[in-house]
Amino acid sequence: MAAAIALSGRGRGLSTPNPNVGCLIVRDGHVVGRGWTQKGGRPHAEAQALDQAMDRAAGATAYVTLEPCFHLSPRGPRCADLMARAGVARVVIALRDPDPRTDGQGASWLRERGVTVEMGLMADEAARAMGGFVLRQTLGRPHVTLKLGLSLDGRIALPDGSSRWITGPDARAHAHMERARHDAILVGGGTLRADTPSLDVRLAGLEARSPRRMVLTRVDAPAGWERIAAPQDIATLDRVDHLLVEGGAAAAAAFLRADLVDRLLLYRAPIVIGEGLAGIGDIGLTDLAQAHGRWRMTDTRALGVDRLEVYEAVRSA
Amino acid sequence: MAAAIALSGRGRGLSTPNPNVGCLIVRDGHVVGRGWTQKGGRPHAEAQALDQAMDRAAGATAYVTLEPCFHLSPRGPRCADLMARAGVARVVIALRDPDPRTDGQGASWLRERGVTVEMGLMADEAARAMGGFVLRQTLGRPHVTLKLGLSLDGRIALPDGSSRWITGPDARAHAHMERARHDAILVGGGTLRADTPSLDVRLAGLEARSPRRMVLTRVDAPAGWERIAAPQDIATLDRVDHLLVEGGAAAAAAFLRADLVDRLLLYRAPIVIGEGLAGIGDIGLTDLAQAHGRWRMTDTRALGVDRLEVYEAVRSA
Repeated sequence: MAAAIALSGRGRGLSTPNPNVGCLIVRDGHVVGRGWTQKGGRPHAEAQALDQAMDRAAGATAYVTLEPCFHLSPRGPRCADLMARAGVARVVIALRDPDPRTDGQGASWLRERGVTVEMGLMADEAARAMGGFVLRQTLGRPHVTLKLGLSLDGRIALPDGSSRWITGPDARAHAHMERARHDAILVGGGTLRADTPSLDVRLAGLEARSPRRMVLTRVDAPAGWERIAAPQDIATLDRVDHLLVEGGAAAAAAFLRADLVDRLLLYRAPIVIGEGLAGIGDIGLTDLAQAHGRWRMTDTRALGVDRLEVYEAVRSA
Repeated sequence: MAAAIALSGRGRGLSTPNPNVGCLIVRDGHVVGRGWTQKGGRPHAEAQALDQAMDRAAGATAYVTLEPCFHLSPRGPRCADLMARAGVARVVIALRDPDPRTDGQGASWLRERGVTVEMGLMADEAARAMGGFVLRQTLGRPHVTLKLGLSLDGRIALPDGSSRWITGPDARAHAHMERARHDAILVGGGTLRADTPSLDVRLAGLEARSPRRMVLTRVDAPAGWERIAAPQDIATLDRVDHLLVEGGAAAAAAFLRADLVDRLLLYRAPIVIGEGLAGIGDIGLTDLAQAHGRWRMTDTRALGVDRLEVYEAVRSA
């Protein structure tokens, strides 16, 4: 399942309007098929993996990060039916599909046709890998990551605004890979006017993965930029499951104040800046006690001399 | 040697005017003596370990973090001589004594008496454990640690100054243990007037280890406080090998600006504060390129939900 979840990551930022599912088919200890949701949502991961497996799918075990779909669509076949027809003996599912058109019916269909079905293996990890899809289904909005490149003392720039460079090449390359895994990137109006950032993916081979560019502003957006007037408007965005907020301090604060940040992506350089610009503006905090218990570290690692820290919002279920 | 270095830590904050040395004596695979420099500097680590070992020192190997002393003192015996008389067969030394009164003569004395001497094992780690002594000898000043308790976005307090609590009980207990390992703690004049911190060690059994209290200010210090007018004045402090600077932002910046911080002790809580107070004021940085290559992480660990990060200043030798 861990391998299937890793495969699902390949569809991140590409698969909308469909979830980025991963699927692995194993027979007699050998991987006979691998798939992930393709660009634009089709083919589905299962269909792709079954295509690879061909007749080796008969009697095999399929690991899939989301319950195979059951609803009829003009865009492609029902994966639950495909799997049953291919003779898959056992389907291990991480996450039950929250989409009401499937929601357990895919598993039922398989079981009725004699397929062994297990559900729930690594469900948390799968939900994290398909965070945008899950939030779309549960809260009706995209998954939001706030990215900051910081000094040890939490500065994102010198007093004059210069921020090239705080983090080193490894951290910057990682940040570009994160861009490729998002459907859209957003900056605040002030940052757009001050920096005119290109927000593209500057990694060899991934240039075509540059996401849509958005700006949080009350005035008109320039050509090539989409506009939202308030963080809450992300719910109206079409085909955006994963949104990356790259600053500045006012935009970061607006999303935090609205409790619309699901993940913090902090690149911390081993430098001290002292007087300088902060990465996050006023979030309306008046009591330190309210600040606690809201963030949980899920990853930390070295990126050259810098460190990556990933935090996820703690929300009651 | 790692065990001897760990023993040396027990004398930190107590052993001045002598270095906090650690010594371990091993014979036939068994530890027969352990010692560390005692309060006020005597007995020396070697004398204490030899006392424990008694006649088992004959033919044994001694691991000692600093070259045994050779200079005559009215305060006690010469350790190099003590070791030779006890019949120690082999002495493994981490760090050559930079004090010109010994500086290789301890090792020579031992070799002349037929003792095998090896020097340099874990010298970097030993120098770190005796950082204050080494800096006293090389730069003529104490070793300075700057401590900060920070949010993820680098804030040390809300805009109104409230900072209770940013970090949790585990991090605060660790910070009190660090206090006990320092000879003196310093705060800025503003912090003293605003918070009147007690700066004591609030750990069961270590209350008596509360260090001397110092304030960086141009005006008179209140009773119970010692005063320095500028960071450079630390060179004049008597019996202070390890100084802990606990803020505020102006004092932290003054020491950083003077390049008088050797170690950063960062306790980082998993909270976001947004608008708030910064831990470090203006350090005179005008170009980000100058900020790089100055700090190297030497430790990071979880303390409850918080993280400790330790950085050391990178200085050319």
